[in-house]
Amino acid sequence: MSVFQRAALIGVGLIGGSLGMALRARGLAREVVGVTRGEAAIARAHERGAIDRGGVDPAAGVDGADLVVLAVPPEHVVPMARRVIPHLRPGALLTDVASVKVDIVRSIDALLAPTGRATFVGGHPMAGNEGQGIAAAEPGLFEGTAYLVTPTSGTPREAVDRLAELARGLGAVPVEMAPDQHDRAVALVSHLPYLVAAALMGATGDAVPAAGPAFLGATRVAGSPVALWAQICRLNREQIRLALRAFREELARLEAAIGDGDRLDTLLEAARAARQRLGETQKHSDGS
Amino acid sequence: MSVFQRAALIGVGLIGGSLGMALRARGLAREVVGVTRGEAAIARAHERGAIDRGGVDPAAGVDGADLVVLAVPPEHVVPMARRVIPHLRPGALLTDVASVKVDIVRSIDALLAPTGRATFVGGHPMAGNEGQGIAAAEPGLFEGTAYLVTPTSGTPREAVDRLAELARGLGAVPVEMAPDQHDRAVALVSHLPYLVAAALMGATGDAVPAAGPAFLGATRVAGSPVALWAQICRLNREQIRLALRAFREELARLEAAIGDGDRLDTLLEAARAARQRLGETQKHSDGS
Repeated sequence: MSVFQRAALIGVGLIGGSLGMALRARGLAREVVGVTRGEAAIARAHERGAIDRGGVDPAAGVDGADLVVLAVPPEHVVPMARRVIPHLRPGALLTDVASVKVDIVRSIDALLAPTGRATFVGGHPMAGNEGQGIAAAEPGLFEGTAYLVTPTSGTPREAVDRLAELARGLGAVPVEMAPDQHDRAVALVSHLPYLVAAALMGATGDAVPAAGPAFLGATRVAGSPVALWAQICRLNREQIRLALRAFREELARLEAAIGDGDRLDTLLEAARAARQRLGETQKHSDGS
Repeated sequence: MSVFQRAALIGVGLIGGSLGMALRARGLAREVVGVTRGEAAIARAHERGAIDRGGVDPAAGVDGADLVVLAVPPEHVVPMARRVIPHLRPGALLTDVASVKVDIVRSIDALLAPTGRATFVGGHPMAGNEGQGIAAAEPGLFEGTAYLVTPTSGTPREAVDRLAELARGLGAVPVEMAPDQHDRAVALVSHLPYLVAAALMGATGDAVPAAGPAFLGATRVAGSPVALWAQICRLNREQIRLALRAFREELARLEAAIGDGDRLDTLLEAARAARQRLGETQKHSDGS
C-alpha cells in the first residue's frame, strides 16, 4: 500500500495510541506525530512507541501531515476539526474514530467544503479492550476487527479507498456504510446492549448472588467506564430511541408468547438460529 | 460427611450424569442407580462412569435408595415424583434440580405429606456447560458453583442440612433460600437475561455485521437449546412478568435520562459500580 509521509494523531489514548503503534510497527507512515493535552502524555506515548514526536498544539501537530486522525472523545471531534482544518496540508486525508457518525460527518464536511484543502472520510474501528488510555494501547488492536468506513455520496472515491487501504494495512477488515446506516446499526448492536446491561444491573438488585453466566455475559459491558458511553448515548439519541422501541416490541412479543403454546418456542428458536449463525467470529471489538 | 448407601438418579442427562460421576468419584454414595427412558441411555451412562447400574422403571430404580434425585426436565418433575413416591424407602431424602421451585416444592410436599415416607428438599445447582445430555456430563461440573437449596418453613432442618452437606461434598457452595425468593431471584438473574438476549437478536436483524463483544456477550445465552428455556418461562411466568416490569422501568429511566444532563451519568455509574462489585467470580453456572 502507499505509505503516508506524516500521520498526525490528535489524541493518543487507547485508539490513537494503538494506531500510532501499528502505523510505526507496520511501516504505514514514515513519521507519526502525536498531539495530546499535556507534555506528560506525550512522554508516555513516546515511551510506548506510539509516536515519533509530539506536542500540545493541534495546529502545529497537523503541519505537513498527509493523514490526520481525530482520535479524541466523540463530543470533541467537531470542535477539534474546526481548530485543525485551517492548518491542514492540501490533499490531506482527514478521518476520525468516533462511534457516532451522522452529525460528525455532516459538520466536518461543511467546515471543509469552503476550504477545499483536504478530504474527510469518517471511520469507526470496532476495536478496543478492557483498558483505557495509552497504557492499554497495543499495536495488534485492530487485527481481525471490522473497521467501519462511512463516506457520503459526495466523498471522493479515491479518499474512501485510501482509508479502506489503511484499515487493511492495520490488519482490519474495512466495511463501508453510509453514516445514517452506521448510526442505526451501532445503536442496535452496541448502544442498545449497553443500556440493556445497565438496566439489568438496576433491575436485579439483591438477587445478584444467584447470578449465572447468562447474567455475567449480558451485563459485562455495564462495568466499562461511563464517560464515553454517556457521550455516545447523547450523540446517537435518536437512533437509540428507535433501537429501544424495536427491542421493547420484541420483548413484548416474547412475553405475550409465554402463554401461547408453541408460539414462544417458535420465537426462541428463531433467536437461537440467528445467534448460532452469528457465532463467535468477531474478536477484540469494544462494542462502543 | 455421611455417605448415602444408594443414590437413585431419575434422569441421567447433563446434570444427573454429572451428579452420578461426582457421587461415585468422591465416594459420596456407595451405589448409584440410574433411571432413563431407554436401555441405550443406560449403557451410555454406564460407559461414562455416571452409574453403577440402571433401568427404565422409576419404581424399581428408587427401591432401597436413601437419596433420590429427580433430574428430569422441569415439567416432568412433579409427574415423576408422583410415580416414585409410593416406592420410596422410609427416611429417604428426595430432591430435584429444577430451575423453578414454588410449584414443584408445593406439589411434592402435598404428595409426600400423607405418606410420611420421605422428606423432600428442593435443590437447584447453578451449574452447566455449553453441552447437553450425558455426553456433556463431567464430575467437576459443580465445583465452585452455587447450589441453591429451597426448604419451606415446614421442611425438617436435618434434611436441609443433609442436602447442603451433599452440595458441599460435590464442591459446590450451598445457598439457602425460600422457594418464592428463589423463583424471584432466578427470574431476574437468569430468565430475564435469556429473554432479553432473544429480544436483542430479534430487534437487531440486518445490523448484526457491526456486532461487537457487548452484543456477543449479551446474546450468547440466546444460542442455547430452546426446549428447556421454554419450559422454564412457562413455569416461572408470574415472576418473569415482575422481572420484565422492573427491567422495563429501569430501561425507561435510562432512556429518559439521556436528555437530562448528569442524570444519565449517575445512573450508568451506579450500574457500573454494581457490575464491578459482582466481578467475574462465578464460573460454570448455566444461567438456567
